[in-house]
Amino acid sequence: MRHFLTTEDWTRPELQALLDAADDLRRQPVNDQLRGKTIALMFLNPSLRTRSSFEIGAFQLGAHAVVLEPGKAAWGIEFERGVVMDGDAEEHIAEVAGVLSRYCDAIALRAFPLFKDWSHDRQDPVIRALAEYASVPVINMETIVHPCQELALMRTIQDHLGAPDGRKFVLTWTWHPRPLNTAVANSALLIATKFGMDVTLLVPDDAYLLDEHFMDAAHYQAESSGGRFNITHNIEKAYTDADFVYAKSWGALPFYGRPEEEAQLRAPYRHFMVDGAKMALTRNARFSHCLPLRRNVKASDEVMDADYCVAIDEAENRLHVQKALMTALLNNQEQGEGTD
Amino acid sequence: MRHFLTTEDWTRPELQALLDAADDLRRQPVNDQLRGKTIALMFLNPSLRTRSSFEIGAFQLGAHAVVLEPGKAAWGIEFERGVVMDGDAEEHIAEVAGVLSRYCDAIALRAFPLFKDWSHDRQDPVIRALAEYASVPVINMETIVHPCQELALMRTIQDHLGAPDGRKFVLTWTWHPRPLNTAVANSALLIATKFGMDVTLLVPDDAYLLDEHFMDAAHYQAESSGGRFNITHNIEKAYTDADFVYAKSWGALPFYGRPEEEAQLRAPYRHFMVDGAKMALTRNARFSHCLPLRRNVKASDEVMDADYCVAIDEAENRLHVQKALMTALLNNQEQGEGTD
Amino acid sequence: MRHFLTTEDWTRPELQALLDAADDLRRQPVNDQLRGKTIALMFLNPSLRTRSSFEIGAFQLGAHAVVLEPGKAAWGIEFERGVVMDGDAEEHIAEVAGVLSRYCDAIALRAFPLFKDWSHDRQDPVIRALAEYASVPVINMETIVHPCQELALMRTIQDHLGAPDGRKFVLTWTWHPRPLNTAVANSALLIATKFGMDVTLLVPDDAYLLDEHFMDAAHYQAESSGGRFNITHNIEKAYTDADFVYAKSWGALPFYGRPEEEAQLRAPYRHFMVDGAKMALTRNARFSHCLPLRRNVKASDEVMDADYCVAIDEAENRLHVQKALMTALLNNQEQGEGTD
Repeated sequence: MRHFLTTEDWTRPELQALLDAADDLRRQPVNDQLRGKTIALMFLNPSLRTRSSFEIGAFQLGAHAVVLEPGKAAWGIEFERGVVMDGDAEEHIAEVAGVLSRYCDAIALRAFPLFKDWSHDRQDPVIRALAEYASVPVINMETIVHPCQELALMRTIQDHLGAPDGRKFVLTWTWHPRPLNTAVANSALLIATKFGMDVTLLVPDDAYLLDEHFMDAAHYQAESSGGRFNITHNIEKAYTDADFVYAKSWGALPFYGRPEEEAQLRAPYRHFMVDGAKMALTRNARFSHCLPLRRNVKASDEVMDADYCVAIDEAENRLHVQKALMTALLNNQEQGEGTD
Repeated sequence: MRHFLTTEDWTRPELQALLDAADDLRRQPVNDQLRGKTIALMFLNPSLRTRSSFEIGAFQLGAHAVVLEPGKAAWGIEFERGVVMDGDAEEHIAEVAGVLSRYCDAIALRAFPLFKDWSHDRQDPVIRALAEYASVPVINMETIVHPCQELALMRTIQDHLGAPDGRKFVLTWTWHPRPLNTAVANSALLIATKFGMDVTLLVPDDAYLLDEHFMDAAHYQAESSGGRFNITHNIEKAYTDADFVYAKSWGALPFYGRPEEEAQLRAPYRHFMVDGAKMALTRNARFSHCLPLRRNVKASDEVMDADYCVAIDEAENRLHVQKALMTALLNNQEQGEGTD
Repeated sequence: MRHFLTTEDWTRPELQALLDAADDLRRQPVNDQLRGKTIALMFLNPSLRTRSSFEIGAFQLGAHAVVLEPGKAAWGIEFERGVVMDGDAEEHIAEVAGVLSRYCDAIALRAFPLFKDWSHDRQDPVIRALAEYASVPVINMETIVHPCQELALMRTIQDHLGAPDGRKFVLTWTWHPRPLNTAVANSALLIATKFGMDVTLLVPDDAYLLDEHFMDAAHYQAESSGGRFNITHNIEKAYTDADFVYAKSWGALPFYGRPEEEAQLRAPYRHFMVDGAKMALTRNARFSHCLPLRRNVKASDEVMDADYCVAIDEAENRLHVQKALMTALLNNQEQGEGTD
């Protein structure tokens, strides 16, 4: 049995096998490979694409996805060990994971960090607890990384650029009214460096560098894969000769949990928005974003409506890569004592 | 590819073909005509019948419906063009429509008017924006019209009265504690006049006349179809010799967005409730309502529990007509580049 | 047509037939016995296990479950007769039941008591109203009893102990920060006495005795089945020689609707928590709980993590017994005029 918590646990050839399977599945989308199987989708945060693509993907494979929203239509959940549970949570992850492992063939979880204490959140404790207690595969639908988005991004890069090795990939920070999760930024670095790309991280200030774990992983992976990893504050330098521009907003980690101070730091940098002038510096680059995207804040209407914008293709690829992932994880599974 | 935004875009023979298909489907409810297909149901407002009937209808045809509630379990959506999106909405309808068009074979939307500015709401801007950006059929699940309810109503009229031409159809306004959407009233006029009925609109005051677009359409359609369209404030005159009584409450458009003033205007008219005495004036008319209905406010218990009340039949017909609609729109569709 | 509102309406052999069918179904979980059938799951209160197990169970049988949450994503519902509905509720249970009976082959309802007036709530008025107006089977997903949990509990007892007759079953009250529903406690007494067990009810104070209806039923059923029914405040006496310990917290009925006073009464009794020392008094008893459970409040980590804890097995059995129940009720049904 294998979990899909982060691509750091998977090799490039293993990930490429999922991407190849996704390509097959989009040519033959409806089949019965997972007939009678079930997956629980547990959302601690909102979702449109993730929920739709998992639910539809399961259906197209003959399986069924159950959507759970603990704390809203279900009970609040405790994730720490050994707690005297006389607070808000009615239930411990040990029992939730135990029961869902009996009902379902896999459990997928979305659990954003709590934006209070990064030293706690950076351990990814919620999904780690789930994976520890579950006896079926656990899939990460975004915590402090977003590995399903990574697969969709790399499928999209290969669809549009062919082999990714040596192609210039720019991850640019953009302004946003609130400090957002770093997950997609962490993930973009992980997947682009693992696949041998020439990666540039563009941030307006060193405070927007990502957690050292992901910076180190990007350096190490670039070295192993024959790629490169550079950091810059220079917009022109970053965009010049780029093959693929990827935008994301995130909050500065040194100000984690102090949104007012972070807002002041962020205020001068609205001009990091992706626009036509910046895209004109590239080598006819494709542009993408994980969505949702605020138009004319993260990217201009001109960019979003251009032929080189492949954000909708990337979103579509979520469906195909997640079907490949479910097929790999659920068919790989031994028959348990439970429901199948 | 064709949308189903309003019955004004469809001819009487086209609508009758849907009603005939609905009749076939209720005799053979479970089949595989839409095997592997998917439809997104996007609700900006609550629903019981609409959601159940679409979700069950899709299932009975071998398809799957995904229920999305943007702003609750999903992201808030911006519907205007060219906006700098630094307010509440995290996402533009262009991307939502684009992505869902890749995941699904159709998108259905419920978006009630906002009760602030009728000159804006009467353009039906939200579903028009969705239809513009979607590359799959869009179905109206109630905006400022409710065309699925129209199909269910006309199916019910034909089930109970046979040919509708020349039969007297009364649409009566009723009191309600809040000013409600005019959609079902607009729709009742549209469908009854299109099918050649002798239509009477009963309102307590001219302030309760419907938007001129729908008043004009009713006059024009009645003329084209050989029907009639009359307006009255006289309860006795309206009910006398009626074949079909249809009740609905709605807010007075001149007071749109000013609910306190509208409440004062409305206050003297609680006696417009449908009761046994009024029904006794008819030619053994059937009574119906789109539901939900407040008993002893819009119609008395006596009326709701009478054999002549066919509101439950009409609700059941929602299932059959929507299955006919999905079958027509989804099978009509060319194979896209996306998921099927 | 038959409802499943309380096990008091079903004989022991009838219930045993459901338990035997559940055993068959867990060996062959995926089949097409209910192909094309639909069930509405109406939740007035949150749920994780109940929703997942019904939804997955329906899917594994070829059916589809629609999840409705009236008052949240659907309309508020009125359950009383003859009311002038000018308050909050937009719709009467008569219409909800009527419509859902046309769309679905069964309706399941969760409706916790309102914690205001026990003389009202003890009549179980909400599900009784639904059953009265529905023309398809109604299934109780927890009101003032929880008969699906009873089936899962008795399936688990038989899985671990074999024949239940004469085995010592202890239902122990436990502390909890809030006064909870008595449903599972009522149900545990009903099912254990019906199946001939030697039943002990352990409460810290006579105020925690259950409603006289259930106390009387337990006495009467124990007599009929050759079992026993005893009440004690003595922890040691209760646990000694027990074969099965079942824990639940509930509010004291004499303080129903007065949570502050009840909290004072409850305060001295945190030591009723199930722990290793208490379990050591038993005859190697199994321990279970219906979940959700607050660890180190209702039962210690030691108990929950022990091999003798079968709470996860009981939760799994929810799936199997509910599939048996749906199969029995839906296949038993005559073809209606409606959707199938």
